[in-house]
Amino acid sequence: MEPILDLIRKKRDGQALSREEIQRLANGAADGSIPDYQISAWLMACYFQGMDSNETDALTEAMLHSGRVLDLSSLPGPAVDKHSTGGVGDKTSLVVAPLAAANGVYVPMVSGRGLGHTGGTLDKLAAIPGFRTDLTPERMLKLLKAAGACMAGQSAEIAPADRKLYALRDATATVESKSLIAASIMSKKLAEGVQGLVLDVKTGAGAFMRDRGDAVDLARIMARIGASFGVRTAALVTDMDECLGWAAGNALEVVECIEILRGAARPQSIRLERLCLELAARMLMAAGVEERLGEALARCEESLESGAVLEVFRRMVRLQGGDEAVLDHADRLPQAAMVETQEAQADGWIAACDALLVGRACCALGAGRERMDSPVDPAVGVSLLKKRGDAVRFGEPWVRIHANGETGLAQARELLQQALVVQQGKPEDHPLILAEEWS
Amino acid sequence: MEPILDLIRKKRDGQALSREEIQRLANGAADGSIPDYQISAWLMACYFQGMDSNETDALTEAMLHSGRVLDLSSLPGPAVDKHSTGGVGDKTSLVVAPLAAANGVYVPMVSGRGLGHTGGTLDKLAAIPGFRTDLTPERMLKLLKAAGACMAGQSAEIAPADRKLYALRDATATVESKSLIAASIMSKKLAEGVQGLVLDVKTGAGAFMRDRGDAVDLARIMARIGASFGVRTAALVTDMDECLGWAAGNALEVVECIEILRGAARPQSIRLERLCLELAARMLMAAGVEERLGEALARCEESLESGAVLEVFRRMVRLQGGDEAVLDHADRLPQAAMVETQEAQADGWIAACDALLVGRACCALGAGRERMDSPVDPAVGVSLLKKRGDAVRFGEPWVRIHANGETGLAQARELLQQALVVQQGKPEDHPLILAEEWS
Repeated sequence: MEPILDLIRKKRDGQALSREEIQRLANGAADGSIPDYQISAWLMACYFQGMDSNETDALTEAMLHSGRVLDLSSLPGPAVDKHSTGGVGDKTSLVVAPLAAANGVYVPMVSGRGLGHTGGTLDKLAAIPGFRTDLTPERMLKLLKAAGACMAGQSAEIAPADRKLYALRDATATVESKSLIAASIMSKKLAEGVQGLVLDVKTGAGAFMRDRGDAVDLARIMARIGASFGVRTAALVTDMDECLGWAAGNALEVVECIEILRGAARPQSIRLERLCLELAARMLMAAGVEERLGEALARCEESLESGAVLEVFRRMVRLQGGDEAVLDHADRLPQAAMVETQEAQADGWIAACDALLVGRACCALGAGRERMDSPVDPAVGVSLLKKRGDAVRFGEPWVRIHANGETGLAQARELLQQALVVQQGKPEDHPLILAEEWS
Repeated sequence: MEPILDLIRKKRDGQALSREEIQRLANGAADGSIPDYQISAWLMACYFQGMDSNETDALTEAMLHSGRVLDLSSLPGPAVDKHSTGGVGDKTSLVVAPLAAANGVYVPMVSGRGLGHTGGTLDKLAAIPGFRTDLTPERMLKLLKAAGACMAGQSAEIAPADRKLYALRDATATVESKSLIAASIMSKKLAEGVQGLVLDVKTGAGAFMRDRGDAVDLARIMARIGASFGVRTAALVTDMDECLGWAAGNALEVVECIEILRGAARPQSIRLERLCLELAARMLMAAGVEERLGEALARCEESLESGAVLEVFRRMVRLQGGDEAVLDHADRLPQAAMVETQEAQADGWIAACDALLVGRACCALGAGRERMDSPVDPAVGVSLLKKRGDAVRFGEPWVRIHANGETGLAQARELLQQALVVQQGKPEDHPLILAEEWS
């Protein structure tokens, strides 16, 4: 067997590693038999040299099989999950999971916590009093049978090699490698034992992949990995230049989801609702429940209107220990102590409302975390009264800031002021879905 | 202060780090306050992105000042050292140090042990019974005053940051970076407190820098660093396609040096002797003892002929605890149990005798070490009876193998057979000195 040093050198010099070699590295990282400094040197070499499709598949496989894989064979129907690469106000999971579940697809959703300017589904769910996401595989299976969907945090049993490698990447500036990102996401998603996957790769100001070409590459790599593992995968590249919907901040985002689920979406939620429907429709297709997009979309729209989706969500909240009364009384969710509005400084149309700055404003208020171990405040955030393409007048309120005390308030005000771009003349419409890859 | 993560990212993205940033990394590596996995990621980023001259100077300075710097101010004359990047049969130090010392230059030589196919000066000296190289700075100063030259191993007090970084580079395939190599060598050499330096950068089959362009680059970088630190530096790029001299293997190389010092050099040693004179002449120039190359060379040649150099060597061996009788009785040096000859398989001229393969043959016999902690056998090695450009006949012995038992013998035979290239017609002469850089 070649020494690990030779594998690092091989990658450094642009050669591809074999399946066995990748396996040795991933397993050695996970069990600690290869020192971290060698793993991080290999990761940096991967950053510069990339990984080919065999290497990426091998890494995905090694990380996937480093832990437990859910056995969903006892479910009476197909299971499909959706995953987003993260954005600002991206609360689609809370709507999409019950949407797909209401239409015959089981959704064993495993989510993460937010970091930096992007929110995490687990943090949003934590805003619902009592809601528990620490589920064992056995409990997940029970919940799926009872509600059709469940939402859990990643357990230590799932892809521990990915956990280890991700922690090292995070500390060594090697996160931003498309192959490593793809293998990391796919190993965790494939560990859910699903038959289909829908991936929402975000691009634009508020996304990790600011460049559209990079996002398309990532979508392609992940769709290809899905195919390699026999999982039907749709990877959409969607716009993240502006905050999705009107809410950014955990409890506020739950409020926005409930409005959509109740059929009472505000005009500022239209684009978000559209994305939820588009993603859920692809989940039906990935599950084999529907063949054609139009029919899948129509079915999703009908179930949302009929209240069937709201009922799935209600059951899920109840079964996971959450206070289901929040569905009828949004004021039972955490509320910020003060709400102030900010006014537009010019007449015109909103040409942009930079999602990154909105996300950073929320973070300043305490809605996000800079470090994985910091707490978040569920109540704080911003609500957008106006969105891109809307007309505004000088002095008209365009955003509400929900704050608890003075913490980060001045900074949030400044960031939001910077975020808003008002122009003369109505801006062109931006497409929501920029690319779509099916495996 | 920026987090270390941001410094890694900065380098990864091709930006130069500031002097303070480099200092933080080097010091943090040495004192353990920055984890190894971050240091190795930074080193790999340096491998890919290189370092500019300010960064290289800053790293040299940080490593130099991480430990003790010799104070040679009490010496009555200038001090100059010579350093080689390592080759096969490269025993110049043993001749060059007394050569320069016999001509008014103090030589506080600090050397390393060999690794892989290249030998190390310390291993050659260890073949002399009793010779001690574990010298304190105080002892070095005494020996310099008494003999004009001394030869020591690197103490833990000299450039500890380099020691730490080198160990990490060695384990992470980041050794082969010109800036890192230059900073590593120069930090240790500058810590000797010398006024001048002569660097022998090897290139060719048996050298670390196989590519001549790379070797020229490295020579330039090191000469420039020397200038930055006010040390007059000559960096020569010299040929390492063939073994230097007739001997490869520790005791055998000492024998060859003694022959040269006694004025009894074999024809196979001519190129080696020439290189020793050329290097020593540059040391005289770097010291300011001579201004012109021709005069410096003439002075070195005369001192060698007069026996003055042999006397310096004798004094040095005696003062460092070595058995000086070996100068008159080479058979007091360790001898291998068996000596066998290998014959040429064709008539013609020797076009090449691949230094890498000769070095690996010695290593197989036990003369070198694969790992830093393995022992070496001082007695084993090879003696070349014929060199490049010599005529040979079928069946004529061209090399002697000195072995202790069967260990590696078959492998050494095979490697040597591969090393020899016999052609019809006399090959062209190869230049010895390929490039020369002065700071």
